[in-house]
Amino acid sequence: MTRQEEYMARALALAEEAAAAGEVPVGCVIVKDGTVVGCGRNRREEKRSALSHAETEAIAMACETLCSWRLDGCELYVTLEPCPMCAGAILNARISRVWYGARDSAFGACGGVFNLFMEDFPHPPALVGGILEEACRTVLTDFFRALRDGADDS
Amino acid sequence: MTRQEEYMARALALAEEAAAAGEVPVGCVIVKDGTVVGCGRNRREEKRSALSHAETEAIAMACETLCSWRLDGCELYVTLEPCPMCAGAILNARISRVWYGARDSAFGACGGVFNLFMEDFPHPPALVGGILEEACRTVLTDFFRALRDGADDS
Repeated sequence: MTRQEEYMARALALAEEAAAAGEVPVGCVIVKDGTVVGCGRNRREEKRSALSHAETEAIAMACETLCSWRLDGCELYVTLEPCPMCAGAILNARISRVWYGARDSAFGACGGVFNLFMEDFPHPPALVGGILEEACRTVLTDFFRALRDGADDS
Repeated sequence: MTRQEEYMARALALAEEAAAAGEVPVGCVIVKDGTVVGCGRNRREEKRSALSHAETEAIAMACETLCSWRLDGCELYVTLEPCPMCAGAILNARISRVWYGARDSAFGACGGVFNLFMEDFPHPPALVGGILEEACRTVLTDFFRALRDGADDS
């Protein structure tokens, strides 16, 4: 396993935790100089908040850990391509690099629907997709299949 | 004063509160069926968080007030055109209508730099800019002038 795959595996474990809690399974880890400074998972249903995505949770924790809203030098690993809100939060926090797992053709703001980082905003991060892509996609398809099967049974 | 100007005046009072606290002055109010269900102001420095914009604060409060991450039927008033993060949060919360004051040609994601709501994402809100535009712009220019003057004095 590469270093990137190891961090993505940690994000994937958080996505699985989200699935077990009935949330769309997305997990995120933020790393600075080899240390995890933030992590999070989707909690939209639990917190009843449109803001509670894996990335915003992880960014909030990283800002707290580093006592700063500036996360320069940080790398963010997320199992699903960020949505516009999270891609915007990544810009605002000045995160240096984003690694994502599965592409999101419905809500992805890093190429899936459009690429926010190609627009004329300051501090765009470097971007790499497709890390542990199959595993990141499988946790999502399994979750939605189970939801559908549950709906069929009822 | 129109109804829209009255709500924008409330958002402007929050922006002035932000300025007095040394924050870039932006304020936001969310209204549903004639009732204010959320409000917020920029607290990025106070909270040392890249996520603490006026709109995210107001959306968090509105989700709490309405016990739901869905803010359908809500109207958001903000003194400055939303950035990509906040425009994305507006989409995620399914807010129905956005009224903003001053345009932001550096970070605006509702036309200033580009328009997120013209991309192919679900639930784009209706959008109107220029409400109390001059007052919304003045609170910002006064803040940055005072910052510069302070820097010149030191």
